Amino acid sequence: MCAMQGLPSWLLDIGPLDAASMDAARQRLDSLTKPRGSLGRLEELYVRIAGITANPQPRPGRKVIVVMAGDHGVTEEGVSAFPSSVTPQMVLNFVSGGAAINVLARHAGAEVTVVDAGVAIDVPGGGYLRRNVRRGTANMCRGPAMTRDEAVRAIMVGSEVARDEVARGATLIGTGDMGIGNTTASTAVLCAITGLPPARVAGRGTGVDDAGLARKIAAVQRALEVNLPSSSDAVDIVHKVGGLEIGALAGLILGAAALRTPAVIDGFISTIAACLAALLSPASRDYMISSHLSAEPGHKAALDVLGLSPLVSLDMRLGEGTGTALAMSLCDASLKIAAEMATFEEAGVSR
Amino acid sequence: MCAMQGLPSWLLDIGPLDAASMDAARQRLDSLTKPRGSLGRLEELYVRIAGITANPQPRPGRKVIVVMAGDHGVTEEGVSAFPSSVTPQMVLNFVSGGAAINVLARHAGAEVTVVDAGVAIDVPGGGYLRRNVRRGTANMCRGPAMTRDEAVRAIMVGSEVARDEVARGATLIGTGDMGIGNTTASTAVLCAITGLPPARVAGRGTGVDDAGLARKIAAVQRALEVNLPSSSDAVDIVHKVGGLEIGALAGLILGAAALRTPAVIDGFISTIAACLAALLSPASRDYMISSHLSAEPGHKAALDVLGLSPLVSLDMRLGEGTGTALAMSLCDASLKIAAEMATFEEAGVSR
Repeated sequence: MCAMQGLPSWLLDIGPLDAASMDAARQRLDSLTKPRGSLGRLEELYVRIAGITANPQPRPGRKVIVVMAGDHGVTEEGVSAFPSSVTPQMVLNFVSGGAAINVLARHAGAEVTVVDAGVAIDVPGGGYLRRNVRRGTANMCRGPAMTRDEAVRAIMVGSEVARDEVARGATLIGTGDMGIGNTTASTAVLCAITGLPPARVAGRGTGVDDAGLARKIAAVQRALEVNLPSSSDAVDIVHKVGGLEIGALAGLILGAAALRTPAVIDGFISTIAACLAALLSPASRDYMISSHLSAEPGHKAALDVLGLSPLVSLDMRLGEGTGTALAMSLCDASLKIAAEMATFEEAGVSR
Repeated sequence: MCAMQGLPSWLLDIGPLDAASMDAARQRLDSLTKPRGSLGRLEELYVRIAGITANPQPRPGRKVIVVMAGDHGVTEEGVSAFPSSVTPQMVLNFVSGGAAINVLARHAGAEVTVVDAGVAIDVPGGGYLRRNVRRGTANMCRGPAMTRDEAVRAIMVGSEVARDEVARGATLIGTGDMGIGNTTASTAVLCAITGLPPARVAGRGTGVDDAGLARKIAAVQRALEVNLPSSSDAVDIVHKVGGLEIGALAGLILGAAALRTPAVIDGFISTIAACLAALLSPASRDYMISSHLSAEPGHKAALDVLGLSPLVSLDMRLGEGTGTALAMSLCDASLKIAAEMATFEEAGVSR
């Protein structure tokens, strides 16, 4: 598969979770001054992080939220409530720290790494990673969103960012996205994978009206008819109806998994990228932590593809990694429980 | 009502939320660089905190989780998986910082105030508030859990702690509980208020087995038959089938509401106390923020009584204020969003 996909084997050869570390983590939790299992999903989270990292006693560490940005030619079809110019404007906003993700990342104690994977214009200044594969996708209603080679390169952008962040000490990697039009591309990817009709899974994204929603459904339908994407070849799907930031997020998730680092998955766009990652390497699913259930209707369908259950459900629909930030705080909570609570013996509490 | 209940009028005269502050809060949120409403419940939370505090721009402040401890005579009936001796042992664990609530409160940046409202023995040492009303309740299967006067005093313990914490600068007050046997008393309170049969709402608490659950259901049934508590007189209910920490939590919630301070409600026990607070002053409901949906089956029924929707659902069933701590972190997230995000104008982002 590796050679066929043009992706390196380190990215696709993902092993199972480490059972011995998970057993040790469960034993630790059961020794602490609380009824067994009474912290519910916080306990499950700790055990999973132990299995992912193959560390029987994982601790809080460096948390990085990677916000992948890209533009979408399909916005020509009138599918978004905001103009494409907002994508680079928001990249600048991320860099200067004024966006929602900056606030929530600071709250969670996480860093934000902003990546231009495919913004339509060259964003001035620094403070973000210039990894532009192409200046926005082509309009997928008229042909492929990008070339197959560009799809591979987008995925590699993400996997290389994951590799670099892990090398710099990241112990949790989270996803975030920015791209006007990217709920339309993500819906097309979801329909390609699941065969679900666009009318059933398309949503209002950042707030399109009824007419805009109808245009969005029609655009997804047309993109699928024009391009006939595979249902199982992730590179083909990114190539034909994907997005540069979506491909990059898939690579980021795979890269994190390959390096035994939990990949915290944001909302709809990120979960679609996670579905692509799972097509490339099914074992990567075990390394994903779903943060939240977004208000976008296709999100639940995408989570079902992966068999993931989100940690919170707060009717958020912003993307950027805002759900990731909240979930990372819950990950840290679970790690601190195991690291800091007293055992029954230490506290002199009867079992 | 006040004179009849023996409770002071400051505690029961609770006004409506401040509409002008809520409008100003909504306007602020809509000026920020995100699609309108796209942070979902975080935005609702901010607007509600503005209404509660009558502050158009509330900021993060001092967060206090009050853990009320009390013992229960009904444990004689074999309704709990842990012996009553665990209540004072856990008070010591709270004081020394080794319990789950200490870890999660530190994680959320909240303080923990531990109160002996009715522990069966005198807990040695300091570090907690000695407000013991009586040394544990009587077995409610054989008569009232406490006198009516003790019920009033338990409620006043909580309201006075709220008053003192607000005086010391608390801007968010949260509830927590410790009391072996208190899911049994709480189930009795829930059945008294709703008329629901004990078999339908009783749960396993901290982990009782099938035989224990059967004993618990029978104990609640007997307590209701023996005492015939009112369905609407909260003091009568606390007196007959309540708990000292449960009454104190009801007073804490009322006190917070009366002082226009958000009351963050933990799980089953705390939500039962919130139902009692709402019986004493229905307007207090608007001041309550439900933190999480616990695994205890009666919790949903209690939330329905209040019309509250919990922020998270993580299968937790520990109490102590552990859900409160997670919710307080979400409250802070919502406050920081409004305080720290850039507006469209500031960031130069197109609307």
